[in-house]
Amino acid sequence: MLRYAKPVAITAAELEDFTRMALELAWQAGRATLRYFRSELVIDDKRPNGRFDPVTEADRAAERVIRDGLVKAYPAHGIYGEEYGHQAGNGLTWVIDPIDGTRAFMTGMLHWGLLLALFDGEKPVLGVMHQPFTEEFFYGNNDAAFYRRGRHERPLRCRECPSIEEAVLTTTSPKLFEGPGERAAFDRLESAVRLSKYGGDCYIYSMLAMGFVDLATDAGLQAYDIQALMPIIRGAGGVVTTVDGRDASMGGFIVAAGSARLHSLALARMKER
Amino acid sequence: MLRYAKPVAITAAELEDFTRMALELAWQAGRATLRYFRSELVIDDKRPNGRFDPVTEADRAAERVIRDGLVKAYPAHGIYGEEYGHQAGNGLTWVIDPIDGTRAFMTGMLHWGLLLALFDGEKPVLGVMHQPFTEEFFYGNNDAAFYRRGRHERPLRCRECPSIEEAVLTTTSPKLFEGPGERAAFDRLESAVRLSKYGGDCYIYSMLAMGFVDLATDAGLQAYDIQALMPIIRGAGGVVTTVDGRDASMGGFIVAAGSARLHSLALARMKER
Repeated sequence: MLRYAKPVAITAAELEDFTRMALELAWQAGRATLRYFRSELVIDDKRPNGRFDPVTEADRAAERVIRDGLVKAYPAHGIYGEEYGHQAGNGLTWVIDPIDGTRAFMTGMLHWGLLLALFDGEKPVLGVMHQPFTEEFFYGNNDAAFYRRGRHERPLRCRECPSIEEAVLTTTSPKLFEGPGERAAFDRLESAVRLSKYGGDCYIYSMLAMGFVDLATDAGLQAYDIQALMPIIRGAGGVVTTVDGRDASMGGFIVAAGSARLHSLALARMKER
Repeated sequence: MLRYAKPVAITAAELEDFTRMALELAWQAGRATLRYFRSELVIDDKRPNGRFDPVTEADRAAERVIRDGLVKAYPAHGIYGEEYGHQAGNGLTWVIDPIDGTRAFMTGMLHWGLLLALFDGEKPVLGVMHQPFTEEFFYGNNDAAFYRRGRHERPLRCRECPSIEEAVLTTTSPKLFEGPGERAAFDRLESAVRLSKYGGDCYIYSMLAMGFVDLATDAGLQAYDIQALMPIIRGAGGVVTTVDGRDASMGGFIVAAGSARLHSLALARMKER
């Protein structure tokens, strides 16, 4: 398990190098997933007696590509991945979700992506979301965030939304709010917004960073589901915490907003009874 | 309004010509929509006192491209489009939804597409679904259906699914089942399937035709929301009707399945009380 620890300082030059490597490995791993996308898949079920949770060969192939690359480039670093678990290191840990949005992937849909973050012990300092089929990258480092597709690159910027009533809300599925009080909190928020839209996994947080969605929320997230997205959202000017306002690095019930003001309005609305 | 009439016979050569033209106009109209995708949009609201229903400049620009092309190529044909209404013709009518999935479009997401069908008075004989951002085409003529992306082209084929319990079900949103008994019918089906997934508009029917989804259902559809998808689904071996088993050409509460057997199982399940 990933745990909080005293943060490891990294230099600007290191951050630049890590970013370049993360983008390169995401690309390579993405090529590996595409060999399985929309083809006959071998589908496992991680929890045989529980909820349906497909794991594909693509997941494993992609994580192996990233792990192999990281071990070669940064042998001292730790690695924490959805498929192959945790390997401790010098305090810097790469956090991998090889395919976020496995239901989308297995149904041939487009809203899935590869997530790669670098956790310094306190927070993710670098995050990459890569959609291999569309060849898109969303990446950030808390201070800035960028969108890249082919030779096109531009900054990501959340949009301003003055009130809950004018907000566009997204969630992967309302059925994922399964914990005590979670669905009620979501329903309170949903009933107040201008428009809500279901489906999307990591893609909805990327659209929040791009300024086309105002609020995004999901419950039951793991650290590897959210860490890569945090430096992107923050780098684009957004705010992301748990529903009770705490650090989001370890996952849980997450609320992201395009601005600090909208974020606190949303948390307040979800807390009402 | 589009109405049923005595079907107009067309030859195989005509069908081939119409198909080529439909693909070309879809491509051109798609280029027009991309000028507005993920940019600052002028968003209208078609029903100022009703549910939020964005119509963008992109919608109108795309429909104009298609109408202009059709009037030039087939001046005798009728045209029925979401944005610019109905223009009667010789009994053959082109049916246009310039952007199916406007919520997806306006939030920067990917599951939207341009729909173009040719209605012969009795049924759609040709359908094209085009996603301009991913440069994908799904098209069919009831007898065959194809997927095209760049120089890659291959037949579309639904998959076999032996039972409701093993099926993957998709719907754009459970909130769209607003008519009397609609939500209950959907809930009965959803509670029986292996997995359900929300979000997707025309894209979920395309994935059914590609063999990655077993059941797709939406209520409140218009003729232009479903006609283009029917010849694709049927050409891939699937079945699509209204929930009470009638012709789907005029929209309504639609149920599509990858096989006749699964389709009748689904209708029976939705009818139970």
